[in-house]
Amino acid sequence: MIGIDVGGANLKVVTGSGIHIHYCPLWQQSPITEVLSPYSGEAAAVVMSGELADGFSNKNEGIRFIVDAVRAAIPGAVFYGTDGRFHLGPDRSLAAGNWLASADWLREQAPDGILVDIGSTTTDIIPLEPFDTLKGLSDLDRLQRGMLVYTGILRAPVPSLLRSVSLAGTPTLVSSELFAISADVHLVLGHIRPDEYTVPTPDGAQASVPAALQRLSRVVCSDFEEIGEEGAYAVAEQFWQEQRLLISSQIERLDPRHEKEVIVAGVGAKVLAGALGGAVLADRIGEMADALPAYAVREVALRTAGP
Amino acid sequence: MIGIDVGGANLKVVTGSGIHIHYCPLWQQSPITEVLSPYSGEAAAVVMSGELADGFSNKNEGIRFIVDAVRAAIPGAVFYGTDGRFHLGPDRSLAAGNWLASADWLREQAPDGILVDIGSTTTDIIPLEPFDTLKGLSDLDRLQRGMLVYTGILRAPVPSLLRSVSLAGTPTLVSSELFAISADVHLVLGHIRPDEYTVPTPDGAQASVPAALQRLSRVVCSDFEEIGEEGAYAVAEQFWQEQRLLISSQIERLDPRHEKEVIVAGVGAKVLAGALGGAVLADRIGEMADALPAYAVREVALRTAGP
Repeated sequence: MIGIDVGGANLKVVTGSGIHIHYCPLWQQSPITEVLSPYSGEAAAVVMSGELADGFSNKNEGIRFIVDAVRAAIPGAVFYGTDGRFHLGPDRSLAAGNWLASADWLREQAPDGILVDIGSTTTDIIPLEPFDTLKGLSDLDRLQRGMLVYTGILRAPVPSLLRSVSLAGTPTLVSSELFAISADVHLVLGHIRPDEYTVPTPDGAQASVPAALQRLSRVVCSDFEEIGEEGAYAVAEQFWQEQRLLISSQIERLDPRHEKEVIVAGVGAKVLAGALGGAVLADRIGEMADALPAYAVREVALRTAGP
Repeated sequence: MIGIDVGGANLKVVTGSGIHIHYCPLWQQSPITEVLSPYSGEAAAVVMSGELADGFSNKNEGIRFIVDAVRAAIPGAVFYGTDGRFHLGPDRSLAAGNWLASADWLREQAPDGILVDIGSTTTDIIPLEPFDTLKGLSDLDRLQRGMLVYTGILRAPVPSLLRSVSLAGTPTLVSSELFAISADVHLVLGHIRPDEYTVPTPDGAQASVPAALQRLSRVVCSDFEEIGEEGAYAVAEQFWQEQRLLISSQIERLDPRHEKEVIVAGVGAKVLAGALGGAVLADRIGEMADALPAYAVREVALRTAGP
């Protein structure tokens, strides 16, 4: 049995022995079938969120495309939906079922927990019980409850959280061009290594600290020489401050009395847990925590199938 | 004599008889020379802002590329800088000289005016006198004074101004993906026609109202069917409200006592003047107001050359 998570940017596969992350932006021509063909003999449990990609004219078209592409490689694959069940074919409930699979697995381990899964692009914040109240929630429902926060460790555009930065005390409007992303912020702050910068750079230049400092400088329409280290780091630090604040305020909203155990997963877990506190899921399940929905849907399928 | 404005996305040419706008995103391979070759026999005055494009490793490289590419078509071209002078070759002062050329021309017509030039991507807000205080201002200086506001009528990402929208009274976080842009907002609000949507759509679909409504729905991770007309228009209206507020607050900052005549130019002039008040420059100089820096640098060059 393998677990598969078809996201908008990455396709993640969890086998009994490890995880495999394939950069595979979703659109009509995405090579999902080719990427999965090495697994064609396996049983597979699948979650998705890539149906929202704007290469599809609507979510149903995206769901159908993903299901067809997966089944072309693995005909017997089953698909987990927001109803908490497995489906054999396309179904509206398959849209964004990934986070519910994570909750469905983790709720047995940590019923009093609140899961914070910070990925490259988004952060899921999920109170694990009562599980039945989670079923049927769409992305829209979660945006309204603060359970889906569109900010991540790599792909968040810097101007998505900053409209102005303070440079040496002077408020400075920012450019809304895609000059720098959160991966640049976390790279220069030492939160990620260059090899963890696994998405394309906005300008096509290197995933290095000097190149990231130049990208951060462009956010205020400057070359690095114009604003220097102090200026470029000010942009990075103010973005990270806003990002932390956004995530922590939504956790607070879902757990105002701080009663729940915060469990942090995802590629940004180490960084975020350091800032917010909370247990790091990777301490329990290792690197699988970086691909939690793919890991979880496999576990739920194994549990459902029984011993 | 022709006027040329080399921006980050468009190359605009003003001749004695009209304007020509060429969509020409700037990077190392941009066909500036080819686009300008029909004008090779002309004298030309040039302004630029495209040197900030992140295909260049810094502004000097961008300036050199643009100057070389223009001179390959028009060897005698002259380039207007933020020092208010014309240069024959690459110079650091050529970075973002476009807005100063506009002011240099308009200040003689409306010394008590404040120019608001709203383009596809950015809005320049320029008190026209005292002109000498405008010289030497970099993009960074203008971001700090509220004279350069990164919002425009076509290319502004919707999440650059909205972190949350109210849908039927419920606050709803938004996606930071580039699902919809200001052109979608202004198209569905009837501020621009489909043929005025002159930039690529984010999803590659049509520049039509139905397609724009689907793009606006994706901002809250939904299909149009999920949130309906009411929801999609709510996204558009709240973006436009924020955009108006951002621009008007910066005008207020530069002219707190409302003493100056507001003169509105650029492709968004009609829309913005309706919302903010002010005179529309196009009523005086026609379509030239949509390419003001290219028009103005030509006028300034003619004035400098004398009769």
